[in-house]
Amino acid sequence: MAPLRTALLQGPGGIPGSVGDSLAVLADAARQAAEQGARLLVTDEMFLTGYALGDRVAELAEPAGGPAQARVAEIAARHRIGIVYGAPEREGDAVFNTARFVGPDGGLLAVYRKTHLFGDYERNVFTAGAEPVVQAELDGVRIGLLICYDVEFPEPVRAHALAGTELLVVPTALMRPYEVVPRTLVPARAYENGLFLAYVNRCGPEGSYDFTGLSCLAGPDGVVRARAGGAGELLLADADLAMLRAARAQTPYLTDRRPELYRSLTDG
Amino acid sequence: MAPLRTALLQGPGGIPGSVGDSLAVLADAARQAAEQGARLLVTDEMFLTGYALGDRVAELAEPAGGPAQARVAEIAARHRIGIVYGAPEREGDAVFNTARFVGPDGGLLAVYRKTHLFGDYERNVFTAGAEPVVQAELDGVRIGLLICYDVEFPEPVRAHALAGTELLVVPTALMRPYEVVPRTLVPARAYENGLFLAYVNRCGPEGSYDFTGLSCLAGPDGVVRARAGGAGELLLADADLAMLRAARAQTPYLTDRRPELYRSLTDG
Repeated sequence: MAPLRTALLQGPGGIPGSVGDSLAVLADAARQAAEQGARLLVTDEMFLTGYALGDRVAELAEPAGGPAQARVAEIAARHRIGIVYGAPEREGDAVFNTARFVGPDGGLLAVYRKTHLFGDYERNVFTAGAEPVVQAELDGVRIGLLICYDVEFPEPVRAHALAGTELLVVPTALMRPYEVVPRTLVPARAYENGLFLAYVNRCGPEGSYDFTGLSCLAGPDGVVRARAGGAGELLLADADLAMLRAARAQTPYLTDRRPELYRSLTDG
Repeated sequence: MAPLRTALLQGPGGIPGSVGDSLAVLADAARQAAEQGARLLVTDEMFLTGYALGDRVAELAEPAGGPAQARVAEIAARHRIGIVYGAPEREGDAVFNTARFVGPDGGLLAVYRKTHLFGDYERNVFTAGAEPVVQAELDGVRIGLLICYDVEFPEPVRAHALAGTELLVVPTALMRPYEVVPRTLVPARAYENGLFLAYVNRCGPEGSYDFTGLSCLAGPDGVVRARAGGAGELLLADADLAMLRAARAQTPYLTDRRPELYRSLTDG
């Protein structure tokens, strides 16, 4: 099976506050990624609207199946590429911070709602999701979705590995001074779980934040296969299931676990 | 409270097969460590007997309270230093791979039996322990014990953090080509759990193994505070609880967890 070429769109993201401009950026990236053979394009967290919008997030959040989702579907189908993009979603009075996965035919494959909200800002604006593992398949690869702070916890990533995730995609909005996350935690997560991990961050200033960039695709052998710097970039890397199987055979963490000793991890 | 100065004895370890020579190495290291202000000395895994001994492990393994333990108690009391050392322990027909913690008064504070055995060699020679979290206090610091392969799993380290471990000491026998463990996984474990982690490895060849060295003390901020190379070394570093509290306040992973979403981690 051919490796799944994955494009990581690191940028100031969409244009904060302007969904239409963000969609234009996405369309251009999808064209470029497809031209370079990518089958999957992943954006940063809250790509569609911007991250540091405060109360405007609720105003810009669409319900499921809104016009922005329809436009992403057109872009995906036009370039025959899967797209995972970050966007807020409204449901009644609640707003969720989501990663939405649209297939290369434009159909919606999965929606993940961030389960670990970061800091007072996010807890004031968003409702936390309740479903830890959301997956969909693309070209025979089982793809899982998490968002930013989620991946800093070993538990949700382990839950993905146990559920069969092979490529974990993580739209992110990581700010200074947390560079240890992309540099150390992300490769560790990939290695300890034997999976590929595409961590796609924002970069540059927005509001009071300064996002770090440093997006990367880490392999199941713990090696970072592609790494962005601190500026906007369309980064490409391959997720190869043959390598994943070899890594899991060499470091059989998933089969050497002793779940009966881990009960304190689920104590409320 | 003064930081707990910790000495990491990286070496070919004790002298494989010769417990008496290993004890002489330990006595010398304890003297040096105490002279430099250390309150705790940690050896590598199976320091007392050597690691790659095959069937001889069972022969060299003492029951609890044997003569080697008595000698370690003398060394600790003489230099007023806590000692964590790796040694096999026999109980009936079973042999456990243990980390034994002797206090600065020579009293036995704790014994941990390795719960995650690595590969066919260890599974043939040892019985796995059944108690995931073993701790004891020294100078007001709550110290936890794991051994080598254990620390590569996020779950047992998380269990320690949840149980209040502040300094996790990990006697280790890590061989090539697993350098990713001390370089990436160990700092990640310290950071994601907000604790100090002293990872003390063997170095050089023994039997068919080539141990990597690279012992380190990683801080709760993810920064490696001291790092050995590939040769024998007595490495000193401080574990400072004020820094630990600051790190946990900045990255409140332990309070932001959502244990109700982690149930799959304890499925048998």
